Amino acid sequence: MKEHLDFALEIAEYAKKEMLENFDSSLILGFKKDRTVVTEIDKKINHYLVEKVHERYPNHSVMGEEESDQNLSSHLWVCDPIDGTGMYTDSIPVSVFSLAYVVDGEVQVGVVADPYLDKTYTAIRGEGAFCNGERIHVNDKHLGDLGYRINFEMWNHAKFDTLSMVQDMLKVSRISCIGSVARSCMAIASGHFSCDLFPGEEHANCDLAASSLIVEEAGGKVTDFEGNTQRYDRDLKGAIITNGISHEEVLQKVKKYLH
Amino acid sequence: MKEHLDFALEIAEYAKKEMLENFDSSLILGFKKDRTVVTEIDKKINHYLVEKVHERYPNHSVMGEEESDQNLSSHLWVCDPIDGTGMYTDSIPVSVFSLAYVVDGEVQVGVVADPYLDKTYTAIRGEGAFCNGERIHVNDKHLGDLGYRINFEMWNHAKFDTLSMVQDMLKVSRISCIGSVARSCMAIASGHFSCDLFPGEEHANCDLAASSLIVEEAGGKVTDFEGNTQRYDRDLKGAIITNGISHEEVLQKVKKYLH
Repeated sequence: MKEHLDFALEIAEYAKKEMLENFDSSLILGFKKDRTVVTEIDKKINHYLVEKVHERYPNHSVMGEEESDQNLSSHLWVCDPIDGTGMYTDSIPVSVFSLAYVVDGEVQVGVVADPYLDKTYTAIRGEGAFCNGERIHVNDKHLGDLGYRINFEMWNHAKFDTLSMVQDMLKVSRISCIGSVARSCMAIASGHFSCDLFPGEEHANCDLAASSLIVEEAGGKVTDFEGNTQRYDRDLKGAIITNGISHEEVLQKVKKYLH
Repeated sequence: MKEHLDFALEIAEYAKKEMLENFDSSLILGFKKDRTVVTEIDKKINHYLVEKVHERYPNHSVMGEEESDQNLSSHLWVCDPIDGTGMYTDSIPVSVFSLAYVVDGEVQVGVVADPYLDKTYTAIRGEGAFCNGERIHVNDKHLGDLGYRINFEMWNHAKFDTLSMVQDMLKVSRISCIGSVARSCMAIASGHFSCDLFPGEEHANCDLAASSLIVEEAGGKVTDFEGNTQRYDRDLKGAIITNGISHEEVLQKVKKYLH
């Protein structure tokens, strides 16, 4: 898998450079039906990945937030070129590049890159999680402990009512909504944040694939809202991402909001 | 007022340097009753301001988030050394230094500094708002327009139920909670965000004083939740900060949540 990681890192370097050079001046191409935004930089990075995968791994496929292959194989490169595009276009330095190598639905390699702080997070399944080559770990806070932070996203069309969930937990945690689930996951993997509630379904594997492995390899846990593990070659049923130790506590809190 | 602005800029340069040098390694000193955090860097910057004001303006007073004078005059330096300390300690580059020169409750000069993007926002009453010396303006979006973003903060002890307010507006805007009202205000003044709902009361003038002038000088509007202007030498009654054009629309939306 080292070779696949090196390939992902090459793409991540390209993405970081593009994101940084066009920060503060990126061209908004349009809005999607869910009011999220697309820029030329998302499309450019995604297209670069598709071309590079075709060159290097002609039998592999790409599933990207902005561009995918027609013929999907069991060897997939799952990518969100910019996770947090809304914040990107609003000049808030909270967005990341995300790329995962997924085999038969299971993430084997994950890379998430933050161009603003020049940090690249990596994981190979079974070999731990790293930030710029240094081992990272989740924190050991329980829900209710001082400093326990839950990040969440919310959309008007989402099936999962994350807003009510966090309202219910406001007394026992700090809440934020920074606009990038992958960036939030890196904060969990690094021991800063403790939990993220993510309502994503359609194409949401693109947002979360790489991060799910990095969080798990850092000692955390990632499941759907009912506590089940998920495949990352298809749509998700939302996600709860935690430091592991508090996963069951959060599952118990949110279950009354599931229909 | 140019002299007061220059003084505020000197302090801002010191603050930016301290924030940046200690980012990723700042020492948490403790948590306040509202679960917010204080670091040695907040205290250091606040103390530096107190010393410098005593040297330069011995008849003026300081009202800071972490340290104030005993004898408050009608000439006040109102400061939040790090607005967004929670994000600061969680290594998310979304926090700013904020300093206002307030005379008889009215902000005359405001400086907000973002060390991560090396941007300093300034305003003198009646003379426009600037970022690194270039004029900035709010956007002209109405509530419901694509790209209209509302940022908010929420605390379990807050009187103003901002969480329900945004839930009510989720269909007609994008929502975020980036963890620093002053940083959010700079996004409004720059034309990126369109609105912020801020439940702050006690000491909340420290968070908002400088930003309120910068937003207004950029063409926006800042009031309490009932639409009244506020003094910045005392506690606030929450705040609605908008691009101006949508202020009345937001006031109408939130009024059913006021008791």
